Amino acid sequence: MTVSLDDVQRAAERIAGRVRRTPVIQVAPGLTFKLELLQHTGSFKPRGAFNRLLSAKESGELTGQGIVAASGGNHGLAAAYAARELGVPARIFVPVTTPAAKLDKLRTLDADVVQIGNEYAEAYQAALAAREESGAVLVHAYDQPEIVAGQGTVGLELLDQAGTFDTVLVAVGGGGLIAGIATALGDHAQVIGVEPAAAPTMNRALQAGRPTDGPVGGVAADSLGARRLGDLAFEAVQNHHVRSILVDDDSIVAARSELWHQYHLATEHGGATAYAALVSGAYKPTAGERVVVVVCGANTDPSTLT
Amino acid sequence: MTVSLDDVQRAAERIAGRVRRTPVIQVAPGLTFKLELLQHTGSFKPRGAFNRLLSAKESGELTGQGIVAASGGNHGLAAAYAARELGVPARIFVPVTTPAAKLDKLRTLDADVVQIGNEYAEAYQAALAAREESGAVLVHAYDQPEIVAGQGTVGLELLDQAGTFDTVLVAVGGGGLIAGIATALGDHAQVIGVEPAAAPTMNRALQAGRPTDGPVGGVAADSLGARRLGDLAFEAVQNHHVRSILVDDDSIVAARSELWHQYHLATEHGGATAYAALVSGAYKPTAGERVVVVVCGANTDPSTLT
Repeated sequence: MTVSLDDVQRAAERIAGRVRRTPVIQVAPGLTFKLELLQHTGSFKPRGAFNRLLSAKESGELTGQGIVAASGGNHGLAAAYAARELGVPARIFVPVTTPAAKLDKLRTLDADVVQIGNEYAEAYQAALAAREESGAVLVHAYDQPEIVAGQGTVGLELLDQAGTFDTVLVAVGGGGLIAGIATALGDHAQVIGVEPAAAPTMNRALQAGRPTDGPVGGVAADSLGARRLGDLAFEAVQNHHVRSILVDDDSIVAARSELWHQYHLATEHGGATAYAALVSGAYKPTAGERVVVVVCGANTDPSTLT
Repeated sequence: MTVSLDDVQRAAERIAGRVRRTPVIQVAPGLTFKLELLQHTGSFKPRGAFNRLLSAKESGELTGQGIVAASGGNHGLAAAYAARELGVPARIFVPVTTPAAKLDKLRTLDADVVQIGNEYAEAYQAALAAREESGAVLVHAYDQPEIVAGQGTVGLELLDQAGTFDTVLVAVGGGGLIAGIATALGDHAQVIGVEPAAAPTMNRALQAGRPTDGPVGGVAADSLGARRLGDLAFEAVQNHHVRSILVDDDSIVAARSELWHQYHLATEHGGATAYAALVSGAYKPTAGERVVVVVCGANTDPSTLT
């Protein structure tokens, strides 16, 4: 199954007015940030969540049973937010290891939070079981067509906002965001995936010829800690010749620090990972190259910024 | 002396490429933020500082003696930054009470930091004396025509970015920003000054018929803590019928908290003061009114956000 530009365009129409059109800022000659960290709930995730829920509403799949999702992080917040805005209940399955602060945030969004299992995989299995039992709509963190198409609306906005540009740097976890952006941009710009060396899902998939499971770790694991790239993402990054660049934890930490001290942006480590490719020199733009960095997550403890 | 729209337009040409064109974001129907906290050094102040220095360079006033300024806060950072960018030395006079963190920031910008006196007024007198002695250019925090005209470029950008709007809420300290914005906007929108009740310089000036000294206090005193409104600001706010609205410290604290939790913007108290007029209900927009809030300062200890 392939997500098309048409799917992304229809997602943009569907979610218009539900998500913020986040601004861009040119911070230096040839360097522009897309400030997707200013989205509702502090990450790009509501774009996909709203597209999934509104599509399910159109098809009649969305009932009073509402939605289920598995995530103690940005995806859970976005799914709960979208459900609340559409007036349906949300049950969010999280591992028992989820920090209290994240549980509180989910509850603030009126979600029914179910703590189960020690790992994400167990929470996900519980969400699947709940869907079978209740008929609720499952909102996947990245590997559903409506999710990929929704995240791709970031790319459509860039085409409208950022003038002409050559390259877009995007962080990769499960790959929903980069798949959507690559689909939206087509031949307009090269898209480069920036991955923590401690959780290189796309790099591993490109080498193996298919998504494979691998270990998850590093400072950005709370937002980029998928075990494997999504199948939809793999298809999209292959179709659009998306390259992978790896960055180590020190570079991610340095990028996050620079985003705060130089640009006054409070980001989580995952939100700073794309910028780490520039800070570390892992990606070196050529003279005159116009680069866009997607800064995509703000859910951080601000006391750790300094 | 009056600052004119023409002065603001010439300032915009002069400082183009030196300052960031900060973006706007529509956060709700009828509510737009101007993200001036993303400016170099974390506040709007470089606009005026660059306009003052570049004007002085054009006239030959700026020599190898560089500049002097008095401020341990945003103005000092901006003056030091502009001087460094233009390759001239900066001497910044600060009270001995200035926190070490702010001194470090100034020194990072290569400024020669002189600690003198217990109050801002003493540091300012020392800056004046240094100017007399050395011929350095004095960069005032708000009450010079080039400063007001430079800050006014925020207003010109708004006209270009924010579509049609009815009202702009702006925080007031010495009044340089609101004077410039009111001059730039003319009849395009009403401009409302939002002031801490603990340091209401404009309110007091409008009541007395002239700027008068008063006590300085409250949570936003480090950035909005002028003793009196500038003469240029008084003239501008009278000419443009700018109203004053007072907000108490609790409202400023609540606005800052909401800017972080809802909008992922890390602001100082002064940077959140304009928004406090909405949070507190001190300003109640009418149905359909389109309001712009200038979010103007990011220099805060992020550990105090939660």
